[in-house]
Amino acid sequence: MATLGLIEYKDASPEVRAVYDDILATRKTDYINNFWKSLANDPVTLRRTWEDIKQIMAAGALDALTKELIYVAVSVTNQCGYCIASRTASARNKGMTDDMFLELMAVAGMANETNRLSAGYQIQIDERYKV
Amino acid sequence: MATLGLIEYKDASPEVRAVYDDILATRKTDYINNFWKSLANDPVTLRRTWEDIKQIMAAGALDALTKELIYVAVSVTNQCGYCIASRTASARNKGMTDDMFLELMAVAGMANETNRLSAGYQIQIDERYKV
Amino acid sequence: MATLGLIEYKDASPEVRAVYDDILATRKTDYINNFWKSLANDPVTLRRTWEDIKQIMAAGALDALTKELIYVAVSVTNQCGYCIASRTASARNKGMTDDMFLELMAVAGMANETNRLSAGYQIQIDERYKV
Amino acid sequence: MATLGLIEYKDASPEVRAVYDDILATRKTDYINNFWKSLANDPVTLRRTWEDIKQIMAAGALDALTKELIYVAVSVTNQCGYCIASRTASARNKGMTDDMFLELMAVAGMANETNRLSAGYQIQIDERYKV
Amino acid sequence: MATLGLIEYKDASPEVRAVYDDILATRKTDYINNFWKSLANDPVTLRRTWEDIKQIMAAGALDALTKELIYVAVSVTNQCGYCIASRTASARNKGMTDDMFLELMAVAGMANETNRLSAGYQIQIDERYKV
Amino acid sequence: MATLGLIEYKDASPEVRAVYDDILATRKTDYINNFWKSLANDPVTLRRTWEDIKQIMAAGALDALTKELIYVAVSVTNQCGYCIASRTASARNKGMTDDMFLELMAVAGMANETNRLSAGYQIQIDERYKV
Repeated sequence: MATLGLIEYKDASPEVRAVYDDILATRKTDYINNFWKSLANDPVTLRRTWEDIKQIMAAGALDALTKELIYVAVSVTNQCGYCIASRTASARNKGMTDDMFLELMAVAGMANETNRLSAGYQIQIDERYKV
Repeated sequence: MATLGLIEYKDASPEVRAVYDDILATRKTDYINNFWKSLANDPVTLRRTWEDIKQIMAAGALDALTKELIYVAVSVTNQCGYCIASRTASARNKGMTDDMFLELMAVAGMANETNRLSAGYQIQIDERYKV
Repeated sequence: MATLGLIEYKDASPEVRAVYDDILATRKTDYINNFWKSLANDPVTLRRTWEDIKQIMAAGALDALTKELIYVAVSVTNQCGYCIASRTASARNKGMTDDMFLELMAVAGMANETNRLSAGYQIQIDERYKV
Repeated sequence: MATLGLIEYKDASPEVRAVYDDILATRKTDYINNFWKSLANDPVTLRRTWEDIKQIMAAGALDALTKELIYVAVSVTNQCGYCIASRTASARNKGMTDDMFLELMAVAGMANETNRLSAGYQIQIDERYKV
Repeated sequence: MATLGLIEYKDASPEVRAVYDDILATRKTDYINNFWKSLANDPVTLRRTWEDIKQIMAAGALDALTKELIYVAVSVTNQCGYCIASRTASARNKGMTDDMFLELMAVAGMANETNRLSAGYQIQIDERYKV
Repeated sequence: MATLGLIEYKDASPEVRAVYDDILATRKTDYINNFWKSLANDPVTLRRTWEDIKQIMAAGALDALTKELIYVAVSVTNQCGYCIASRTASARNKGMTDDMFLELMAVAGMANETNRLSAGYQIQIDERYKV
C-alpha cells in the first residue's frame, strides 16, 4: 500500500498517536488518510509535516477554501495522482462546489499553457514588473 | 526582447489592434504587456488566447482575485519567471495584499513538498477518495 | 504491458541478448526488468541507454548508493511512478536502509518546497553565488 | 559563465578537441556553443553526450527538423532558458520558419493545458487506449 | 471514472451534443473519448477546448502528424498518463510508425537530459542566441 | 531584489534576528543569503522553514554532503536558478569536489531521461517492485 507500509492507529506509538489525535480533532473527522499513515514511519517527519500543514492551511489572510484550491492547482500541475484525489476531496469538504472545481481546472490549465508560451517566446520581463 | 520581437500598438495590424483595444478596455489600463506584444506575431493565437483568458479569468463561481492567486501558484510551481513577475503584479492589482502573497507562497511551497512525499512513499489512493 | 510490448530473453535477437547478458552480469542478478524489455524494441536505444547507465551509475567520485539516492530524488520530483518503484528497489539493493529512505524523502520534499519559495519570491542570486 | 567555466578550443585537451572537431564537421559550423564548452570539463560526459545527440538527432524515421521541433517543445515545457535559446536557433538553422515556430508554440501550450485538465479531472484511460 | 463523471452521448445536452457531433465529424470516428466526456461537465470549457484543439492541431505550416508527435513529447515530459495513452493512439492513427515512436522517445528523453545539464552547469546563453 | 524586498540584519525585528543568529551560528558563517532575507518578510515562514531545513539537512542516516547533492539534483530537475546557484555553493562548502559535481550532473541528467522513457513507453511496474 506504500513503500514502508501504513501505520494504523491501533499499532501506532504514543508519539504517532498524539499526532493522529491532533489531526482527528483539528479536522473534526474520524479518518486518518494514507498520507499520514505512511509518514508515520518517520515520526519526526510526521509531526513536522502535520504542524506545518496545520499552520499553513488554517484560515488567515486567505480563507481555508482558497488555500485548498491553490493546493489542488499545484497538485494538478505536478501530476500528483494521490494529491489530486485527496486534496480534491478535502476541498469539497471545505465547500468547493462543482462550478468552483470547473473554474479551478480552467484557470490551472490556462496558466500551464501561458507559462509555456511565455517561456517559448522568450519574453523578457516588462520594466514595470521588475522587482 | 522576444523570439519574434514585440508588436507595438502603433505598428499593429487592425486585427491585432482590435485585440489590444479589448485588452485595454477590459483591464481598464493603458498598458499592453510584453506577453501580448509577443503573441501578436500570431494574430490567431493572440485572439484565441485573449478570448480564453478573458472568459476564464472573469469572476464566476470563483472571484477574480482567487483566480489570480491560482495563476501565480501554477506559475511558481512551473518556475516561469515571466509569469511570476507579470501575474504577481496582476494579483496585486486585483487586491492581493502582502499577507495574502505570503500565505500563497506558503501553501504553494507546502503543496510542492507533499506532492513529492506522496509520490516518493508510493502512497495508494484511499478507497474513499477514488472516483 | 507497455506501448510496444516487452521482449523476453528467449525471444530476443542476439543483439538484444548481448545487452541483457551484460545487464545480468554487471548487476549480478537473474532478472531483466520491464524497463529494459521495453527498450529492447529499439536495440540501438537499448544498447546506448545501458552503456550510459552502466558508466554513469558505477562508483566513482560518488559511491554507487549515493547515485541511487540521487536517482530516486529526481524520479520523485518528476512523479515517475515506474522509476520510483524500480529505483527504490535498486537503492535498497545497494544498501539503502529505511532511515536513509526517510531522510531522502525529507530532503527531496524540502528542496521542492524551497525551489518554489525562491522562484515565487523572485529572489535574485547573491553576488557571491554568481558564476 | 558556467559553474566550472568554459573550455575554449585553444585550451582544450586532445581528447576534448577531437569531440569539438567532430561537432564542427557534423554541424558544418565554425562555432562551438557554451553547452559543449561547459560539458568539456568532463571529457567522458562530453563524448557520451555528443555521440548520443549525434545519433539521436540525425534524420531517420523522423527528419532532422521534426526532431528539433520536439526538442524545443520539451525545453519549453521544462522552462529551460538556455535550451530554448539554443535549440530555437538550431531549429531555425534546420529550416524552421516563423509560421512553424508559432504553430509549435501553440501545440506545446495546448498540450500543457490539456495535460493538467486530464490529471485534474482524474480521467481514467479508455479501454481502447490501454497497452 | 472521473471526478465529475463522464457524460455519455445519449445523456448529453444539445449544447454538448453539438460539440460531440463536431468531434465525430472532424475526426471521422464514432468514438468520443473520456477526455471529452469529462470536460462535458463544463460545456463552456468543452466547447472552448475543442475549438482550440481543432484549430491548433489542424495541418498548417506543420503537418498534423508532426503536431501529434509534439503533443506526445510534451505529455511524456509532464508524466501525464492519460495523455500519453490517448495521444500515442492518436499519433498512430495519423501515421506514426513504430520507428517514429522510438525516435520520438529518444529525442524527448535526450532533451530532458540536456535540459538539466544546461541548468545544472549554469550555462549562460551564447551572445548569438540572445533575442 | 525580491518581491517584497530583503530584510537586512540591521533592520530586522528581534524575532527575525533570532533566526538570523541561529543560521549564522549553525552554519558557522557571517553571511545571511537572499533566500532568508526574503523569507524574513514573513517571520513565521522564516522560522518554520529554517527549523525544518536545520533538522532535515543535519547529518543523520545520510551525511550532510549527500543531502546537499540530493538538494542540487532536485533543484536542477526543477530548473530553479536561484536554488542551483545557492545550493551548489553550499555543496562545495560541505566538500563537493569538481568530480563529484560532474557525476552528480550525469546522474541527474540520466534520471531525467529515463523518467521520460519509462513514462513514454508506458511501462508497467514489475510485480516484484510493487509495494
